[in-house]
Amino acid sequence: MRWLLGVACLLLLVPASVATEQPNFVILFADDLGYGDLGCYGHPTIRTPNLDKMAAEGMKFTNFYSAAEVCTPSRAALLTGRLPPRSGMCSNTRRVLFPDSAGGLPADEVTLAEALKAKGYTTACIGKWHLGHLPEYLPMKHGFDSFFGLPYVNDMDRVPDKGPKGRPAFFEPKVEYWNVPLMRGDKIIERPADQHTLTKRYTEDAVKFIRANKEKPFFLYLPHTMPHVPLFASKEFAGKSPRGLYGDVVEEIDWSVGEVLKALREEKLDRKTLVFFTSDNGPWLQFNEHGGSAGLLRDGKGSTWEGGMREPGIAWWPGTVPAGVTTQEMGCTMDLFVTAIKLAGGEVPNDRPIDGFDLTPLLTGKGKSPRDTMFYYRGTKLFAVRHGPWKAHFITQAAYGKDAPVEHDSPQLYHLGRDPGERTDVAKDNPEVIKQIKEIAAKHRDSMKLGEPQLEKLIPAEKK
Amino acid sequence: MRWLLGVACLLLLVPASVATEQPNFVILFADDLGYGDLGCYGHPTIRTPNLDKMAAEGMKFTNFYSAAEVCTPSRAALLTGRLPPRSGMCSNTRRVLFPDSAGGLPADEVTLAEALKAKGYTTACIGKWHLGHLPEYLPMKHGFDSFFGLPYVNDMDRVPDKGPKGRPAFFEPKVEYWNVPLMRGDKIIERPADQHTLTKRYTEDAVKFIRANKEKPFFLYLPHTMPHVPLFASKEFAGKSPRGLYGDVVEEIDWSVGEVLKALREEKLDRKTLVFFTSDNGPWLQFNEHGGSAGLLRDGKGSTWEGGMREPGIAWWPGTVPAGVTTQEMGCTMDLFVTAIKLAGGEVPNDRPIDGFDLTPLLTGKGKSPRDTMFYYRGTKLFAVRHGPWKAHFITQAAYGKDAPVEHDSPQLYHLGRDPGERTDVAKDNPEVIKQIKEIAAKHRDSMKLGEPQLEKLIPAEKK
Repeated sequence: MRWLLGVACLLLLVPASVATEQPNFVILFADDLGYGDLGCYGHPTIRTPNLDKMAAEGMKFTNFYSAAEVCTPSRAALLTGRLPPRSGMCSNTRRVLFPDSAGGLPADEVTLAEALKAKGYTTACIGKWHLGHLPEYLPMKHGFDSFFGLPYVNDMDRVPDKGPKGRPAFFEPKVEYWNVPLMRGDKIIERPADQHTLTKRYTEDAVKFIRANKEKPFFLYLPHTMPHVPLFASKEFAGKSPRGLYGDVVEEIDWSVGEVLKALREEKLDRKTLVFFTSDNGPWLQFNEHGGSAGLLRDGKGSTWEGGMREPGIAWWPGTVPAGVTTQEMGCTMDLFVTAIKLAGGEVPNDRPIDGFDLTPLLTGKGKSPRDTMFYYRGTKLFAVRHGPWKAHFITQAAYGKDAPVEHDSPQLYHLGRDPGERTDVAKDNPEVIKQIKEIAAKHRDSMKLGEPQLEKLIPAEKK
Repeated sequence: MRWLLGVACLLLLVPASVATEQPNFVILFADDLGYGDLGCYGHPTIRTPNLDKMAAEGMKFTNFYSAAEVCTPSRAALLTGRLPPRSGMCSNTRRVLFPDSAGGLPADEVTLAEALKAKGYTTACIGKWHLGHLPEYLPMKHGFDSFFGLPYVNDMDRVPDKGPKGRPAFFEPKVEYWNVPLMRGDKIIERPADQHTLTKRYTEDAVKFIRANKEKPFFLYLPHTMPHVPLFASKEFAGKSPRGLYGDVVEEIDWSVGEVLKALREEKLDRKTLVFFTSDNGPWLQFNEHGGSAGLLRDGKGSTWEGGMREPGIAWWPGTVPAGVTTQEMGCTMDLFVTAIKLAGGEVPNDRPIDGFDLTPLLTGKGKSPRDTMFYYRGTKLFAVRHGPWKAHFITQAAYGKDAPVEHDSPQLYHLGRDPGERTDVAKDNPEVIKQIKEIAAKHRDSMKLGEPQLEKLIPAEKK
């Protein structure tokens, strides 16, 4: 009987995940796409049949968040599973990295690419990086086997009075041209990057990567350059959308999603690949028709109102993620970090605070999301906290412009279920909720150790 | 050879439609539902799995309109295929019919029920009528074989200082109670109507009607009382939706839609029934959480901005209406009048102007919508005209309140494709569009003969 007991004990020690094949991961990450910009999220004139189909075949989130209100911090959080202040990848003065920045994602951060590589994954970053453009910060220093894309944003390296016509009317009159570099690996291969064909070329590269890696697990991170201004579409899409150039650009991204899913199907990888589509932050409303829409949500990019950070979120994994489900459960880009590592049988770093949660129970239709709280940072300051349906704003500020932040001695309070547009402050009627969220916020603030600030570091003048 | 020629000529005279079986028609008509209030139109916290599925199995419109900005005119237009001023069913002072109204839909108007009855259809009106509550105006005088529902709106017959607790906080402090009658045929069977169970009872009646009429063609008109304020849900739905009471009420309507489609499937009528879901006008924004959302569209009920008249529109007819299609083609409730009569092999009245179009080519996936123009009336005044993507506002006015209408010598102009939220007036840049729409408007005004006004007629004091 003893040996039988021994075998039973051994069986109990084998974790369930070992038995499962390691799935591939594809993160499709739009730039400045709004909550309301897809057909399946209610946009009346942008046509997104591929994303609508992806949602119909998978799980559509209505409470999925980017981890920050602007680009650099959002990406840092996605790839590290940590709130941006922890890695120093946010700032109260320079909100993102610029071409004169000397900082970047610190080497001691563990990226999703590194964690998956340790478990045998082939990894690729195809698209916009924006976590440091100096050699020591590029994707291949952070766990990616390959990189094809822009080191930072497509509206940088502006050259006044030069370049092609047809610039968006929303930039300063004298700025007509963006001299941004396109890189492969750590080499610049084109400058200025021909932005008209970026989405198309990213997609071709992504499909090639999928086909070349069908035999072993891979992680494809595809952070699109679009629909961040300045907007560019290829000739197949330019002038086609009823929504104008912004629509053209989103419809080309929709095409790109279709191509990626098609390649996965053709290579018979669809049933062993988790694909997740979302965006880095909300729509840049200041650009009017060149910016997107957050639907009924309030405000957009740059703000900690819902429109600034709540995003379309679509999970697709035929046979594993249930089809045709709309979920109101909460999720965040940082959760993708934890979820992917767990599914790969890897190790979530345990020597530092991790802000992501494992969404596997939700994604597999077996349970709820473990996330019930969201912390909304702007720079290094905690502006708002959501707990369940309640969201308390401790600081409010216009997305852009010169308005100073307004600190509220007693926070504003909104019920995001009944009032998703954050119209009616119900703080007075709910003192016990305020009390609870204040406690959550205080505990969180105590746990927050700021990383070395990266965004204020500048390249010395003599080296420029 | 002569006789052969004769036979050939005879064959040519047989219209194609005769060969087709007459389909059933079901019009599911919500009250004050907003463009953004369903899951498949982007609402984040109202759960509408049945309507989402109906859209996935059918055609979802993103440019479908009610024919008016408030209730009575909208319903008159749906049932007559004519703009409300033609039938006199609109007014610049009393915007809808009230319990003291002596007017109603004139007997010489031809309703959809009458036109279909002439082709052998059994017809039922189950829900809110609101086209005249005096005996001569009730549904059975207008072609319906049966009627079960309210003669007018559920917020009428107010009794101050009386009745149950739990009234919506948005009504005047002294009004707690609505003494509205529930009718069957021309008899009042309950007063006040128990509004908690109206949606449920309408649904049970509708399912019973479907099951009883499976052998011959029928027209079921199901104009829900909800989600018009005051909001009531049955105990199965009350307190369940994350969106609060408004969400409960919409989720119960969604359940109702599911019950109707289920009954059609069970009776094997799904492949011979065109079901159309829409609403009478946009959300009543003045009621805050008790009103709905127009998503990214501007304004709501009572206004001629898009949020006042653009509605969810879902067509379902398995095997005939293609599945999973999102269309940006234009449609309007008045088109349902023409489309249904044509599909039934009936006669569209040719002795009067008809403002609807036959949507059959679009609905069957064989062509486009014949509608390229929308006229937006408020009362008897033409406020705005849409032609293609362009919308010109000749008069603007706040939805409710005391603001006077503002007439624009030169209209405001919006491009609804690029700017669906009507944010940026582009009149100055598009003089040729203004010119064209002015011509369309002038021609239309010339053709408009106002019907005898019905909404100002009052019951004499001695008869009250």
